[in-house]
Amino acid sequence: MQHTLSMKLTSGLGEMGEMDEKIRLSHGDGGVETQRLIKNVFYQHFNDPLSKSMPDSFVFEARQNQLAYTTDSFVVKPIFFRGGDIGKLAICGTINDLATAGATPLFLSASFIIEEGFSIEKLHLIVKSMSDICRQTGAKIATGDTKVVERGSADGLFINTSGIGIVSEYYKPSQVEPGDEIIVTGGIGEHGASILLDRYDLGIETDLESDCAPMCFLINGLGENLKHVKLMKDPTRGGIATALNEIAAEQKLDLELDERTIPVKSEVQAIGDMLGIDPLYLACEGRMLIVVEKGCGEKVLHHIKALDCCREARIIGQFTSGHHGMIYMKTLIGGRRIIPILEGQMLPRIC
Amino acid sequence: MQHTLSMKLTSGLGEMGEMDEKIRLSHGDGGVETQRLIKNVFYQHFNDPLSKSMPDSFVFEARQNQLAYTTDSFVVKPIFFRGGDIGKLAICGTINDLATAGATPLFLSASFIIEEGFSIEKLHLIVKSMSDICRQTGAKIATGDTKVVERGSADGLFINTSGIGIVSEYYKPSQVEPGDEIIVTGGIGEHGASILLDRYDLGIETDLESDCAPMCFLINGLGENLKHVKLMKDPTRGGIATALNEIAAEQKLDLELDERTIPVKSEVQAIGDMLGIDPLYLACEGRMLIVVEKGCGEKVLHHIKALDCCREARIIGQFTSGHHGMIYMKTLIGGRRIIPILEGQMLPRIC
Repeated sequence: MQHTLSMKLTSGLGEMGEMDEKIRLSHGDGGVETQRLIKNVFYQHFNDPLSKSMPDSFVFEARQNQLAYTTDSFVVKPIFFRGGDIGKLAICGTINDLATAGATPLFLSASFIIEEGFSIEKLHLIVKSMSDICRQTGAKIATGDTKVVERGSADGLFINTSGIGIVSEYYKPSQVEPGDEIIVTGGIGEHGASILLDRYDLGIETDLESDCAPMCFLINGLGENLKHVKLMKDPTRGGIATALNEIAAEQKLDLELDERTIPVKSEVQAIGDMLGIDPLYLACEGRMLIVVEKGCGEKVLHHIKALDCCREARIIGQFTSGHHGMIYMKTLIGGRRIIPILEGQMLPRIC
Repeated sequence: MQHTLSMKLTSGLGEMGEMDEKIRLSHGDGGVETQRLIKNVFYQHFNDPLSKSMPDSFVFEARQNQLAYTTDSFVVKPIFFRGGDIGKLAICGTINDLATAGATPLFLSASFIIEEGFSIEKLHLIVKSMSDICRQTGAKIATGDTKVVERGSADGLFINTSGIGIVSEYYKPSQVEPGDEIIVTGGIGEHGASILLDRYDLGIETDLESDCAPMCFLINGLGENLKHVKLMKDPTRGGIATALNEIAAEQKLDLELDERTIPVKSEVQAIGDMLGIDPLYLACEGRMLIVVEKGCGEKVLHHIKALDCCREARIIGQFTSGHHGMIYMKTLIGGRRIIPILEGQMLPRIC
């Protein structure tokens, strides 16, 4: 794999003629060198017919469907991290935002802001990560853009992705009620902990990786079971604590978590302890919070645990009759504590 | 208008409580302060029901239509320039990319990458510019994102917009043929010249402004006349010379321009002369190149000149029988010169 890629890189650079291995301002001016960069880097990896003749706008036939539409910009630091890179994150992030609406991806856009001097070899690796996820999921890059800014005017590379997805006919989100159950699809905080490990020298040896992954497989896997799902949210910035607080506030309902059931890897807990950050507040990039109608939690859980992306899924709590939008957690030692939304204490550039 | 805005600003800042007037890293962490920023800046201006409860994905019912989809990131420097700012440019740029596909905007996304320390008052002005264009055009911001990076990791503010538009039933783009005519909808290079004036101290006093404007009015205005249009392109980075070279290369046809007919304001010419840049290569952000079937140029021209956005429209040339994808120009003094695509000589951060 590495070998094939490095051969491709060499041949790509060769074709570029005068293009050296660093991004120059002229790669972003819309002229000959921009076209070469697009041809030799982007088209080399986004190699399906859609993207070979990328016009200013991509036109497609809409059917009588519900479509979901989303956007996210990615500024993660570092750009390469254990378990992924900014490219994989950008595609997964947008696919996961579509998944929260019960949608699987149809078309994506990819827009790059690149700092002068950025390595073209690294850009190849990042674009290849993006195309790998597209291939796995069937998402297609339909439109894109490239801008270059002077050295010192950006931090390497920022990527924006937007996406259009088709909403499953089975998904009809509805009002949450007391007794509705909350599932998380896997171990929490692994993305946030991985970024911290790679950003700061914590002296921890571990094979922990970011959970960064596309959650459209969950939507396909849920199938008809989506009719038991009342809402979904991907717990990215601020982790499950922030995402659940947002849900509780919107729904004006309290909820209670059971600490014993929340899946946290020991390495994530250790990193959290070391830095004084509760794993509940650490970002996930390949997990989903699923609110399931009362009494259907076990059924849905059993069904999704057969999916690769949900093997560690658990029911972690349920909504209660309080109307304050508060989150309580039964702790391991039998206590009960409030899980607040944090103010100004979270981590920058986690995604 | 200014007064209303400044009152709104004061009240906005007041509501923000502890929020001071500069962007902090915590405004981008996805927690309480991000929510406050969204509520007090974005929702204050994007004030239609769509954006009041911006979920991770926006869901809409598609009809049996052709939809156009596009994206662009904006890194223009300076952020405020004569005739506009990065916000107006971002909305117009995406609307204009949709227009090239014969589409009028339905939904837009808006994603912000903000440098720590950026003025919240300036952000208000920029978001207001965006919402002004949305109001004028009927475009709706359906989804958005905000990221903040540390001081020195970006240059103030970058904006990405993507857009979904409905393609006019009258627009069926087709193969260009010799004799087909080329219309430009107004004076060229005014955006590029304005940016240069504001970026460098050229010591020129002029009321020249960027032509930055939304071209969806052209699509509506063309109406049934769109059936005579074979293709459209907005001449942004690299100006009409670059856009026409791309068309000529794609269509494998030569074309001939008539310098006498190309609308260039004297100030644009003067700025170009001073800096050694041909106005043909200076960006427009509110103009369209329209290729019209042979013999229909005058009819279409007459029709669009009634539109505010096209009063200075002209037929500037036509395709010829050569198949080299070359552009020739009959010059003012009766000569004939090639207009090449430039390599590595264009201006960075014009949009």
